[in-house]
Amino acid sequence: MTVHMKDMANAIRFLSMDAILKANDGHPGTPLGGADIATALYAKHLKFDPQNPDWPDRDRFVLSAGHGSMLIYSLLHLSGYEHFDLEQIKNFRVLGSNTPGHPEYEGDNGIETTTGPLGQGIANAVGMAIAEQSLNARFGDDIVDHYTYAYTGDGCLMEGIASEVIALAGYLKLGKLVFLWDDNRMTDDGSTDQAVIEDNVARFDGAGWHTQRVDGHDADAVAAAIAAAKQDDRPSMIACRTFIGFGIPRIQNDRAAHGGKLFPEDSVAARENLNWPHEPFVIPEKIRQDWAAAGLNGAKERQAWLDRCSKMPADKRAEFDRLMNWHLPKDWNATLKAFKKENAEDPTAKPGIAASGDVLSLLADAIPEIMSGAPDLEAATKHKRQLTPFTKDDRSGRYIHYGVREHAMGAIMNGMTVHRGVMSVGTTFLVFSDYMRHTLRMAALMGIPGLFVFSHDSIGIGKNGPTHQPVESLASLRAYPNMWVFRPADPVEMAECWELGIQHQDGPTTIICSRQPLPPVRTVHTDENLCARGAYILADAEGGPRQGTIFATGYEVSIAMDARKILQEKGIPTAVVSMPSWELFEQQDEDYRDTIIGRDTARVAVEAAVRLGWDRYIGEKGKFIGMSSFGASGDMEDVFKHFGITPEAVAEAVQSQLG
Amino acid sequence: MTVHMKDMANAIRFLSMDAILKANDGHPGTPLGGADIATALYAKHLKFDPQNPDWPDRDRFVLSAGHGSMLIYSLLHLSGYEHFDLEQIKNFRVLGSNTPGHPEYEGDNGIETTTGPLGQGIANAVGMAIAEQSLNARFGDDIVDHYTYAYTGDGCLMEGIASEVIALAGYLKLGKLVFLWDDNRMTDDGSTDQAVIEDNVARFDGAGWHTQRVDGHDADAVAAAIAAAKQDDRPSMIACRTFIGFGIPRIQNDRAAHGGKLFPEDSVAARENLNWPHEPFVIPEKIRQDWAAAGLNGAKERQAWLDRCSKMPADKRAEFDRLMNWHLPKDWNATLKAFKKENAEDPTAKPGIAASGDVLSLLADAIPEIMSGAPDLEAATKHKRQLTPFTKDDRSGRYIHYGVREHAMGAIMNGMTVHRGVMSVGTTFLVFSDYMRHTLRMAALMGIPGLFVFSHDSIGIGKNGPTHQPVESLASLRAYPNMWVFRPADPVEMAECWELGIQHQDGPTTIICSRQPLPPVRTVHTDENLCARGAYILADAEGGPRQGTIFATGYEVSIAMDARKILQEKGIPTAVVSMPSWELFEQQDEDYRDTIIGRDTARVAVEAAVRLGWDRYIGEKGKFIGMSSFGASGDMEDVFKHFGITPEAVAEAVQSQLG
Repeated sequence: MTVHMKDMANAIRFLSMDAILKANDGHPGTPLGGADIATALYAKHLKFDPQNPDWPDRDRFVLSAGHGSMLIYSLLHLSGYEHFDLEQIKNFRVLGSNTPGHPEYEGDNGIETTTGPLGQGIANAVGMAIAEQSLNARFGDDIVDHYTYAYTGDGCLMEGIASEVIALAGYLKLGKLVFLWDDNRMTDDGSTDQAVIEDNVARFDGAGWHTQRVDGHDADAVAAAIAAAKQDDRPSMIACRTFIGFGIPRIQNDRAAHGGKLFPEDSVAARENLNWPHEPFVIPEKIRQDWAAAGLNGAKERQAWLDRCSKMPADKRAEFDRLMNWHLPKDWNATLKAFKKENAEDPTAKPGIAASGDVLSLLADAIPEIMSGAPDLEAATKHKRQLTPFTKDDRSGRYIHYGVREHAMGAIMNGMTVHRGVMSVGTTFLVFSDYMRHTLRMAALMGIPGLFVFSHDSIGIGKNGPTHQPVESLASLRAYPNMWVFRPADPVEMAECWELGIQHQDGPTTIICSRQPLPPVRTVHTDENLCARGAYILADAEGGPRQGTIFATGYEVSIAMDARKILQEKGIPTAVVSMPSWELFEQQDEDYRDTIIGRDTARVAVEAAVRLGWDRYIGEKGKFIGMSSFGASGDMEDVFKHFGITPEAVAEAVQSQLG
Repeated sequence: MTVHMKDMANAIRFLSMDAILKANDGHPGTPLGGADIATALYAKHLKFDPQNPDWPDRDRFVLSAGHGSMLIYSLLHLSGYEHFDLEQIKNFRVLGSNTPGHPEYEGDNGIETTTGPLGQGIANAVGMAIAEQSLNARFGDDIVDHYTYAYTGDGCLMEGIASEVIALAGYLKLGKLVFLWDDNRMTDDGSTDQAVIEDNVARFDGAGWHTQRVDGHDADAVAAAIAAAKQDDRPSMIACRTFIGFGIPRIQNDRAAHGGKLFPEDSVAARENLNWPHEPFVIPEKIRQDWAAAGLNGAKERQAWLDRCSKMPADKRAEFDRLMNWHLPKDWNATLKAFKKENAEDPTAKPGIAASGDVLSLLADAIPEIMSGAPDLEAATKHKRQLTPFTKDDRSGRYIHYGVREHAMGAIMNGMTVHRGVMSVGTTFLVFSDYMRHTLRMAALMGIPGLFVFSHDSIGIGKNGPTHQPVESLASLRAYPNMWVFRPADPVEMAECWELGIQHQDGPTTIICSRQPLPPVRTVHTDENLCARGAYILADAEGGPRQGTIFATGYEVSIAMDARKILQEKGIPTAVVSMPSWELFEQQDEDYRDTIIGRDTARVAVEAAVRLGWDRYIGEKGKFIGMSSFGASGDMEDVFKHFGITPEAVAEAVQSQLG
């Protein structure tokens, strides 16, 4: 291996070791074992500019094995990212530092996505590669033309999500995607021989990938393999044979290297072993210069890109800038007003998911960056509409056939989002949100947008039965910080919730849709977005001061309205509060919340889901009409009756409180 | 194909078609396309006895493609299961019938597991095959020696969980496991060419499986392939090439067959096409007899098995019966009392997960059917202990190295459970419960036991940061019906919660453990299991009537105790309520609940997680000290302070209510 690359790699090793020792915590295995691979990539291939980390056409690098965070912090530090100066390296894992335990998304500072939970990073990378191709189709090679690299360990590849995205990336022939597999054959439990029989290279071959095997401690060989990978029009996987914890005799090629404790003696022994006589955190000037030079490689390329950008037609340039800045197109929501009006006047009950598809269809015309997908549920969810498929032959398509791969979809969506330039919409049944659950967490944790549409939202699906009837999902989604969960009551609310979700940029949005028709409840048109406050009085008490308050979401708002009718007829003035989003309601001021809640009234919440969380709104004397068990297969009307979710039961729950 | 098998298969087709038409709902594609495969299996191979469906040594059959439920209902009806008489077939998908939309677990009636969510069934089957091998090692071929068959479509194979379990089954060389792949190359979205490039046969080959390809409409060929599969010592996959919706000209080999609507004309055309002149729900006597004969095949084998059982030594026989009846061994919890006493007297703070491992270790000695596993977290979770690995060469092992495959673990655990004879314990980090989330749902939905230990339960893990710090997980688990969620405060509570969890047989149990040491709070020994009531007064108010009540779980109980100390010193009599299980608390009578809650006191809950659900206990005036965002990487003490979860904050929250 070229001498200077060896030194550069050792700089990563010792910075990482020193930081981990100082923090007295961290995972040494990956930064030590993968230092040569990373050096080959950063010094010879990666297109990046530490002075302008947010350069849109930079190559993307994802450290999917996020526990090896010191690998990327060392890389960013050495190559010149100010955000990761030596002070930050010394404060590894200290509260408030830029160097947390696992890499946390800072797209403007070289951390392209949050990683740690295994398999997520490589899947995000597939999403980035899709976004690149989509933008490339819109703006051409001059403006968008970059590679996406993901560094993966054995753990990422064992997770089910890996198989999903490997299959999809091969199918879509994402030729500018390169996986660098740190093939050290060792996980926290020990040798991979304990749990793996498959040959990963054959596995990628079978999925249509270009594959190579190299010595992962020979940076020149790795660099040559990357060059070959870039030439091939298939996605590439390079199996880099390495030894975990390379350099520390006690732990090299041992499971203890994964995340085990380091001792000062290890540092002494490694310094001896790798001939590194330098003090902790000291990098010899020559090596610093080599790294600095690597960090400067991209500046010229960026300048050339800027020159090309300056030659773009003004409208195209404006459009590109708009996308990179997350701005919405002018008048993007203009058609929604007409949609609301039309639906306010239309007495037809429509399935929630169909209404959502209608709105998506309008918005897809207005917002060209929208890309949609619904894992093998195109027919049931109606979210393809006018969009054509994104395929290996047509990158201008805006609908992704994910196959039956929900987990892949979620992570790919997150990857598309952090890449920028694409607004991704993903749809599946609410009950299958479980399959992609950790991707929802990652979106919420990163505080990034993403529109997740979940349909078939309750026992309202009827005959398909309890396997497909969520009862716990709403509560489990409402538990996320940063996420907005909407459950619209009819097509008008659907449009309003979509309008809010599209604008929600510091966290993901879920839109929960019924399969069964939603009787219209918003029958008087208003331009105002009533859902914006999270909850509002849909129908006020009449004939006297409010005695009863019924809270509901989604389809059950129509049940609440029927219950109100019963109560009003009995002379009990009752209000119905539609509550499409708890999160937005919680953001309102106390006065507004008190007005809506009506603390001195008889309060009842009705939702075809578990009670968890509703006590906050109904208080200790209030009642809840909903589910306390899983559902049942049968005709929808029978099922609602069976579980006692009826207007009569709701009315009775109000009355019983009034004595 | 043998004529009578063809007729038998057509009986399945028309029963299914007639039932789906009558229900006006259901998925025709699978029962029509897979009828020949199913006939080959049930008529020629499957060891079962419809008169004794719960015969422990029966072969297991799992319809992983659960949407094709009419396939299994037809099979069970035709082969003689009383539970599925003609009336039930005619009531397909009617509320209260035995024939719900998707097959629902009734181990005593031929439905070995609930299926529908794709990928779960094949993974359950792997668990059943593991349980069979484990019991075979204990009781020998005479008593336990059966095959496990799973019927899978393309959808199941695309899900990530499929790759996880295929890899693991190949690795473990589960030779008595046979997958029948309904290779119809069609999913709901259309041709699998839209999303799949991989050759599934090569994929199984690579994972160490025995594979074959046959014409799935030639029942003789399928039967021969099954015979060959049984001979091979590797798990087997038989790719059965079929046409979805076989027999109905309009939909055969079309995506509309998957779950699309059937019309009376389809039934007419199919009757013409397959020469089936019989009225709806009418099966000609000859064909009924052939099916009845198939259903009698196993009776003789069962009798021979009973004869062998009768020759078992009495103690072995008693042990086998004990296992099949879910009974616990005598004195299984005897060692827990000593453990509680010892820990009540030991002032050392111990990590929750280590205490859980200690308890597991005691119970593993007392309960020989316990099998443990922790996907690649053996070192971090300490739940292997004295157990040796279950491997391809040693089936007596009781620890499964799952690899980095949480989703597989969950579904395999469910499969082991429904097989009976094994008590399965699975451990991972709480944040990764997401990866196996749907398997928790399936366990809760089926109402089956299962011990899920989730560690590293909060910001208390400190430096690894927010990717590994759950804040939403507790709430999302508490949302499940049937599940008991325990969060023990110290080793004494740990023993009590395990004791309760082991006895919980109509739903799964999760035990939430800290990584950080838990200061002992139960320092006075009592034989009584105080956790059994879900919540109890750990430290009562002193010096006057109770003015403050602090609710807490897990580690935060120690914070509550410190807060109480502050308040008591200020002369505010304050009680601390430890609340390890909301579910058990909700089962108590109202008087007890009122006593614990102290509705007229200043109430505060402290939990290092989101608030969702706590309002039920603290009321509208109470306060919550916990998380409203994701966590942060840093020293644990710094992180708790940063988020304001301190004894001082809790004490202040009580005081502020008292004015």
